[in-house]
Amino acid sequence: MKRANLQLDEHGRLRHLLTIEGLKRQQIIAILDAAESFISVGDQQVRKVPLLRGKTVVNLFFEASTRTLTTFELAAKRLSADVLKININTSATVKGESLLDMLRNLEAMQCDMFIVRHGDSGAAHLIAQHVAPHISVLNAGDGRHAHPTQALLDMFTIRRHKGEFAPLTVAIVGDVMHSRVARSQIHALTTLGISDLRVVAPKTLIPTQVENLGVHIYHDMKEGLRNADVVIMLRLQKERMQGALLPSEQEYFQDYGLTEEKLQVAKDDAIVMHPGPINRGVEIDSEVADGPRSVILEQVSNGIAVRMAVMSMVLGRAPIETGGEGEA
Amino acid sequence: MKRANLQLDEHGRLRHLLTIEGLKRQQIIAILDAAESFISVGDQQVRKVPLLRGKTVVNLFFEASTRTLTTFELAAKRLSADVLKININTSATVKGESLLDMLRNLEAMQCDMFIVRHGDSGAAHLIAQHVAPHISVLNAGDGRHAHPTQALLDMFTIRRHKGEFAPLTVAIVGDVMHSRVARSQIHALTTLGISDLRVVAPKTLIPTQVENLGVHIYHDMKEGLRNADVVIMLRLQKERMQGALLPSEQEYFQDYGLTEEKLQVAKDDAIVMHPGPINRGVEIDSEVADGPRSVILEQVSNGIAVRMAVMSMVLGRAPIETGGEGEA
Amino acid sequence: MKRANLQLDEHGRLRHLLTIEGLKRQQIIAILDAAESFISVGDQQVRKVPLLRGKTVVNLFFEASTRTLTTFELAAKRLSADVLKININTSATVKGESLLDMLRNLEAMQCDMFIVRHGDSGAAHLIAQHVAPHISVLNAGDGRHAHPTQALLDMFTIRRHKGEFAPLTVAIVGDVMHSRVARSQIHALTTLGISDLRVVAPKTLIPTQVENLGVHIYHDMKEGLRNADVVIMLRLQKERMQGALLPSEQEYFQDYGLTEEKLQVAKDDAIVMHPGPINRGVEIDSEVADGPRSVILEQVSNGIAVRMAVMSMVLGRAPIETGGEGEA
Repeated sequence: MKRANLQLDEHGRLRHLLTIEGLKRQQIIAILDAAESFISVGDQQVRKVPLLRGKTVVNLFFEASTRTLTTFELAAKRLSADVLKININTSATVKGESLLDMLRNLEAMQCDMFIVRHGDSGAAHLIAQHVAPHISVLNAGDGRHAHPTQALLDMFTIRRHKGEFAPLTVAIVGDVMHSRVARSQIHALTTLGISDLRVVAPKTLIPTQVENLGVHIYHDMKEGLRNADVVIMLRLQKERMQGALLPSEQEYFQDYGLTEEKLQVAKDDAIVMHPGPINRGVEIDSEVADGPRSVILEQVSNGIAVRMAVMSMVLGRAPIETGGEGEA
Repeated sequence: MKRANLQLDEHGRLRHLLTIEGLKRQQIIAILDAAESFISVGDQQVRKVPLLRGKTVVNLFFEASTRTLTTFELAAKRLSADVLKININTSATVKGESLLDMLRNLEAMQCDMFIVRHGDSGAAHLIAQHVAPHISVLNAGDGRHAHPTQALLDMFTIRRHKGEFAPLTVAIVGDVMHSRVARSQIHALTTLGISDLRVVAPKTLIPTQVENLGVHIYHDMKEGLRNADVVIMLRLQKERMQGALLPSEQEYFQDYGLTEEKLQVAKDDAIVMHPGPINRGVEIDSEVADGPRSVILEQVSNGIAVRMAVMSMVLGRAPIETGGEGEA
Repeated sequence: MKRANLQLDEHGRLRHLLTIEGLKRQQIIAILDAAESFISVGDQQVRKVPLLRGKTVVNLFFEASTRTLTTFELAAKRLSADVLKININTSATVKGESLLDMLRNLEAMQCDMFIVRHGDSGAAHLIAQHVAPHISVLNAGDGRHAHPTQALLDMFTIRRHKGEFAPLTVAIVGDVMHSRVARSQIHALTTLGISDLRVVAPKTLIPTQVENLGVHIYHDMKEGLRNADVVIMLRLQKERMQGALLPSEQEYFQDYGLTEEKLQVAKDDAIVMHPGPINRGVEIDSEVADGPRSVILEQVSNGIAVRMAVMSMVLGRAPIETGGEGEA
């Protein structure tokens, strides 16, 4: 609970976004509703609103990234914030004295928000524990732990296509074990109360005790995809191939790569998602990735609206509904 | 014709700027006229106009560049656009699956314009063929093929000093063979109908069949410069020296380096141009580069106005005059 | 005098900021007063004023820097300027033909201000001697020579805590020999007329003839700190350890590292300053650096206000008071 509470202020408003864990259904819904209002900004001729004018957003990326870094930068700029990109030695540890000194300096420069990506699980939490009261921390991915804005943009994309979450069958396919995206998606989907959540992967890529999170495990892909409304493919890190976890790329594609043929067992109106960047011919066939059921590029667009929503909420501290229901 | 048409939309308005080839005289004049209105922006106390406010311009530079990158960035910022600089692996091929996926992602992020520089001829065309309808591509240099904004800023500079193009004698001197700048200048100058266009270079640096473009070839520099109104020097890539194409730097300067002495055969009011960066003592003597006839730094200033004009035209899609004359 | 005059225009207004030397007391006070008005900008909800809207500020950093680079960038952005960061080959010499050509190109692009950091003493002066009349140069550190905005933010911080300069005792402790910060502080403090200025260091780190600048030299730290109102610690460059100048880190800390115990001989309300980044356990103990008398992070905040003040003054050319007193 400590971790979950760290991201809410004393009035229950979102201050940091570190993880989906501990957010209530109504809080997630409030973020998705806010994101809805930012979708129209992307459609305007002038894609700019003055909500964060005069605020300074700092990108602290200790891990290489193009898409996530760029969408956070664009979200901040479209909110009229000033954006700082700090050149960081990516080998710096988050616990190093020098990093904490750097954070205190950025605080002294009246920066308002740190977007943190780091290879160590818990890095964004650690930073959030140390920042001054006026600063918000957004987790842009920490180790294998969490990637909450990715999960939120995925929920937003699902809601736009499917409406209600409760009746859905969702299959998450691939390297669940090493995926912070999957971990955050599972927390979001169970909190939103979907009826059938499945993970589909070889035994070597299923984390232990994942069934305690309320998911059903499938090792056969066609069984896992049967009647699914939503198929979420995970990126396969190529370096997994070198270990003992996996056979060859060809064999993996044979068993767990998404093809039109395998997709036929899903519902007719199933959508296909992927956090990107995709490995064509490894976890997904180009025919599917570029096909009519793919919403992969919509996810990217929605990511900007969702990030604009989260940034506005943490800095504006609009109260987010907490409803009357229990903890997730 | 396919290539030329790709840059105009169905109403004949400029959508991309990929090459000078295929642009009509009136279309080039329309760009130069638009640039004239942006010159005053540079002279204002507040060098900023809101024409591209809320638009996102992406610099996709696969080749190192300081001047061109910086002037495009400044042009975009002075039009109030947001500017993204993508860190690109400069060894990435423009045909790679992953590059096309990157482009689709940038489109999904509602970017509006790609400024592309690449070592492969045709790279900007290829990208223009694949982008979504709302996106404009500007070629900032592709291989040995074209560098259209450079040629346009050169035309703009010539017009400011000489008025009419028709009566002029223009000499382009140096490594014509490897120069995308020269290629674009030749297309622009012949389209604008100048009476005497010359290229001056050793045989090894003259491309085959260049005379078909309507230029006169000179191997002797004094003959080539005689009575010229405009002398355009090209940058000599130092790596050409290592091949068999050229003798030593000293010998090259002796024969084709521009000195005050050689310049005496040109008209009294001749102007000296160079796309930069200059190699002092290789293709041009410092006395000339910094002398009263040099307009090299004016070219840099004009480059911002011309790039502002092109950016505004492709995004605003003001109709550009097509007149009644035939294809160039 | 030539150097000092270079930074004032013909009306005695600040045009460049290259060094503290040659500035009069009233001129320094005028900068501090202007900075006072920018402190409130940092406290506003919208940290942005339009004073430099449409101006272009170029960061020319030939030496690596995070804090100084970032605070200049933030200061410029909060004044609504456009900021260019030029990727510079840090081995380029400031005298190279190619650097001067780069400067002329940036001028031709209608840039308004160059912020220069360079490893060679005199680099900013040299650039200031060559720029066009509309351009201002700010020295962000040149070799061992000067770091004037750092000294000004230090004076600003001292004034906020202590009010008048005249009655103060200030001790500068550490590697005075190699420190451009110390050099600029000594000029500022003597010009402001403090009664007792001390440098505290081992003999190997005291520059020759420093006593001619009006400072008292101490080799024993407790004697040097006795009754001090202000203790300024200098960063110890770790590479000094490899030479013959210093014993081990431990011995240095033993003799000249600032601890609570050593600090007890200073006045009860003494403040502790450091230009950062600090070497904990080398020149300063964490207990002091993070303790109640440390104003190290305030210095960082004040640095933005002081840099905003200097940028506004050189571009706005508000007259700065010259009073009737003699040269410093």
